[in-house]
Amino acid sequence: MSIKDVRFGFNFLADTNVLTCMQSIKEWELTFACLPVSSLRLKSTSLLDSTCTVMNPKFCQQWCHCIVAKIPLPINIDSSVETIRLENQKSFIQDISWATFLNVYSIMFELPLQGDFINLVRLLDNQIDAYQSSAVLIQFWALVPVVNLRTHPWKKWTKFISSIRNINQMKLVLKIGTELPSSEELDRWLGEPVTALIIDKSAFSINKKGHPVLSKSHQEFIKKMFNIGCQIIISASSHIQKHVNYLSYLYRNTTSLTPYSSDFISGFEDYLQTPLQPLKQNLQSYVYETFEQDPIKYYQYERAISKALIDKFDDKELIVFVVGAGRGPLVNSTLRAAKDADIKVKVWAVEKNENALPSLLYKNKENWDNCVTIINKDMRLWKPSEKCDILVSELLGSFGDNELSPECLDGAQNYLKTDGISIPSSYTSFLSPVQSRKLHSEISSIRKNRDNCNFQKPYIVQLNNVYTIAKAKPLFTFHHPRKNLEENNSNKDGFLTFNISQDCILHGFAGYFETILYKDVKLSIVPETFSEGMFSWFPAYFPLIKPTLLRKGEELQINFWRCSTKFKVWYEWCVAKPYQSVIHNINGEMYFMSL
Amino acid sequence: MSIKDVRFGFNFLADTNVLTCMQSIKEWELTFACLPVSSLRLKSTSLLDSTCTVMNPKFCQQWCHCIVAKIPLPINIDSSVETIRLENQKSFIQDISWATFLNVYSIMFELPLQGDFINLVRLLDNQIDAYQSSAVLIQFWALVPVVNLRTHPWKKWTKFISSIRNINQMKLVLKIGTELPSSEELDRWLGEPVTALIIDKSAFSINKKGHPVLSKSHQEFIKKMFNIGCQIIISASSHIQKHVNYLSYLYRNTTSLTPYSSDFISGFEDYLQTPLQPLKQNLQSYVYETFEQDPIKYYQYERAISKALIDKFDDKELIVFVVGAGRGPLVNSTLRAAKDADIKVKVWAVEKNENALPSLLYKNKENWDNCVTIINKDMRLWKPSEKCDILVSELLGSFGDNELSPECLDGAQNYLKTDGISIPSSYTSFLSPVQSRKLHSEISSIRKNRDNCNFQKPYIVQLNNVYTIAKAKPLFTFHHPRKNLEENNSNKDGFLTFNISQDCILHGFAGYFETILYKDVKLSIVPETFSEGMFSWFPAYFPLIKPTLLRKGEELQINFWRCSTKFKVWYEWCVAKPYQSVIHNINGEMYFMSL
Repeated sequence: MSIKDVRFGFNFLADTNVLTCMQSIKEWELTFACLPVSSLRLKSTSLLDSTCTVMNPKFCQQWCHCIVAKIPLPINIDSSVETIRLENQKSFIQDISWATFLNVYSIMFELPLQGDFINLVRLLDNQIDAYQSSAVLIQFWALVPVVNLRTHPWKKWTKFISSIRNINQMKLVLKIGTELPSSEELDRWLGEPVTALIIDKSAFSINKKGHPVLSKSHQEFIKKMFNIGCQIIISASSHIQKHVNYLSYLYRNTTSLTPYSSDFISGFEDYLQTPLQPLKQNLQSYVYETFEQDPIKYYQYERAISKALIDKFDDKELIVFVVGAGRGPLVNSTLRAAKDADIKVKVWAVEKNENALPSLLYKNKENWDNCVTIINKDMRLWKPSEKCDILVSELLGSFGDNELSPECLDGAQNYLKTDGISIPSSYTSFLSPVQSRKLHSEISSIRKNRDNCNFQKPYIVQLNNVYTIAKAKPLFTFHHPRKNLEENNSNKDGFLTFNISQDCILHGFAGYFETILYKDVKLSIVPETFSEGMFSWFPAYFPLIKPTLLRKGEELQINFWRCSTKFKVWYEWCVAKPYQSVIHNINGEMYFMSL
Repeated sequence: MSIKDVRFGFNFLADTNVLTCMQSIKEWELTFACLPVSSLRLKSTSLLDSTCTVMNPKFCQQWCHCIVAKIPLPINIDSSVETIRLENQKSFIQDISWATFLNVYSIMFELPLQGDFINLVRLLDNQIDAYQSSAVLIQFWALVPVVNLRTHPWKKWTKFISSIRNINQMKLVLKIGTELPSSEELDRWLGEPVTALIIDKSAFSINKKGHPVLSKSHQEFIKKMFNIGCQIIISASSHIQKHVNYLSYLYRNTTSLTPYSSDFISGFEDYLQTPLQPLKQNLQSYVYETFEQDPIKYYQYERAISKALIDKFDDKELIVFVVGAGRGPLVNSTLRAAKDADIKVKVWAVEKNENALPSLLYKNKENWDNCVTIINKDMRLWKPSEKCDILVSELLGSFGDNELSPECLDGAQNYLKTDGISIPSSYTSFLSPVQSRKLHSEISSIRKNRDNCNFQKPYIVQLNNVYTIAKAKPLFTFHHPRKNLEENNSNKDGFLTFNISQDCILHGFAGYFETILYKDVKLSIVPETFSEGMFSWFPAYFPLIKPTLLRKGEELQINFWRCSTKFKVWYEWCVAKPYQSVIHNINGEMYFMSL
């Protein structure tokens, strides 16, 4: 599996001596414990020993990073009775102060599901700020049950987290018991910063052999949570070792949620990258290296080229131009396809990156019998003496056209015969709305965010801590060759609508593409049609400056533009319904691709 | 030693096959090699093999991080003849492009010591920017000899680096041969970002046993360079293993330059920290823990208290107030001193941090026979029924008064008998001008630097990659108890002058303190009088927004103010001569200590 190593902990419900607690988690092979803050105080003789051990320097360094201090439900902090409010506020701050003094791993509190939490939010942000100004980082865990009879926990949570300013220091802990909501409602938590899951003993039933087991739907949900790197907290009163064993077993049998092969994506989950611009900036050797390893992509290219060669064959030698040849993988595919089909071809390889040339020249000599003509030119400027039957290229980005394939192939079409074939023959970008509190906060914390510029550019990112609000829909399609090159092909606009099946927060859009290489040979990174085993492209992500609450039954409309001048191409985007957002990246001011 | 693990490399002077080069450095147990960029090209048959191995993915990932690509001296890039300039510029950019394509560890060039380098600077910054915009980080190493017959290498370097904008990607490599400049001139390089030292074979002589050895002054300089984490590049043509062995031996026998014990400072070199404000923000348990371990500080306190007890003793029980008692280390010192001197004392411990109270109460019960009276109050607000003979406190920061000891002790003096003793009885802040390109660039890269605010606040930092321009001089002194408490003691101003012994760049001021605890018992972090073995305080650092060139023979004058209102205290500072700088942190707008 590609998911991170999951930490397992135990939830001590009653006051427990710290030493006993540390011995227990060691015995159960766990890594942390949640302990009432009262257990960490010197207030009863029975606790004195442990807390004095707490004061022992050597031991302290061991245990403090293993303890989550639970502080009492802060419901009365928002009491309308001033004396009650102030008294509760005082004890809440004292608890935080003591836990911080001890430098615990995290501080956990139950999010009040009834009443307001205006004062609670104020106190939490105040405390985080005050410690931060002294360079002390504290982290809070807000505990929320997935089911509550009297209210909707997600709505309470979203109201709470939306009003917190220091979001990076506020994580979510979900509690599950016997009952679970619908699978759709559970999936919405995938877009929240869930740091841990408390699994109550009531979630378990006992099987015939006397072992604690979980229902299928519990298992499904916990596996999804493993996938977003969620920690597990066991909350049982007996047979603890059996609970630990069962959940460890479940963890070992969890497979990755994404269609990507796990070896490749490990460490890239939710890691925002700047899209490559191979047209503007030459690729580095190791980038070619990585992409050339894709087991699926070049196999499909070879199949497509093979079909095209057979369709074009009329006893004469066929001319194939590989444009943007890089270090030659598509030349390999072409030569292999021709050999297998027993069709004579004349191959030209065109590459603008002079640093890739030595590899091409070397391979031509060693592997290709010097049969390939190598040209060091920008394909848009090359003027060959003859035209080709088949034009092969690999210029697609995660969003299809975002590495300027349309503009490059329009230039190259001048030397494709009028009845010639372009591989790829078409490609389509796809978009789907997503909720991801994590990606939003990651983008917020990037340096230099003047005019919210970081929310007005696309990213490439292995989407992980993300809830897909609705399935991806196709946006822009480009076909090659084009009938009329005089018509502008760079500018497009379009809109997509999505039905909202449950209340959720829209943070941005996942971008994907599908391409038809030739006839029935396709490549896709759209989740529903993903080319299994392929790893050349992670999804794209287009953020929104302002997260938007969408309600069940509403229709979401988003508008997208692809715009261009002679020198650059860029996207603009906005939400049009149910609310109108600002247009993002207007005039390409925040991000553009250079021609 | 506390210095980082030093990397050793080899400088290949002639074109060398990459495979041979990698085998050699493995054999010599080195970690990297400097190789002419031509060796990395596919231009001659003899090199073809190695460079094709370069193209092999597995091997590539190994070697690329071990190679520093040397590109030819770019002197003609600033030629006044346009054709020469353009031609050289083209090949320079091609070399960078090829090295970057291969993703090498670093790119090294010789800094031209004759003529201009306007165009060179432009090209370097352009290249760094262009790659950075595609998320490719490249690093340059500029090679400078420590001695040159026709020019002053440091002046050339400082002119060059001052005009580079991407300073974090531009490091310095120093080359040493037979001759060395004066020790003072060599020390100036301690304030520069020296990433590596090339030791030419000419630097070595051969001893009677036939082994290569270095002169004392060479050894001294290399040891200083080891201390700032500098890498070593061996440049010999024969007996290479002997050179490696000799330098490894020298490394193993290098001791730390700082007066701090090595175990404690490792990892903290040049790491900028925000000063603690214990008055505003309660200290955490582990902070008390750390400081209580200091082997020297409490020993000296015990000596001072002992002398004060003996001086005050007249057969009656003496009253000692420990104010700001924390978790009680000074109570321990007091009780031990009293026991050793066989003098009866009545001890009160006053501490405002309620989280420290449990420890005090516990120690009182377990260790102090319940003989200490513990008071949870801010010492400025406490109103005891009787006055004390001796007032003991530890409220000093790295710059002496910067944790507001004067203000706290003025409050506490109300309950000190008129003939009573304060321990400490006085403390003095010290300043010395320093050159540190590293600290300057570290501060530049801190987030949120609006109005240069990060250059207008003090830091606490274990000074390492720093050249001390002149010895520290005393600035402000505070005495306790004071004769007239009505007089304002918070506001001070002063200036210091320093003679500049050689051209250098002023980046800021190191701050230190000395305190007289009582009579001849002192503590000091001033380098010349450092209390050996003490680790409770790292130096302070006051930066300047604009680095200033100082010339040999000039007089530097700096002015400092300590200012206050009822609620806060702050420092302002500026350079007054030879140039007038802006006043830093005016009105405490960028940084203040809360009362």
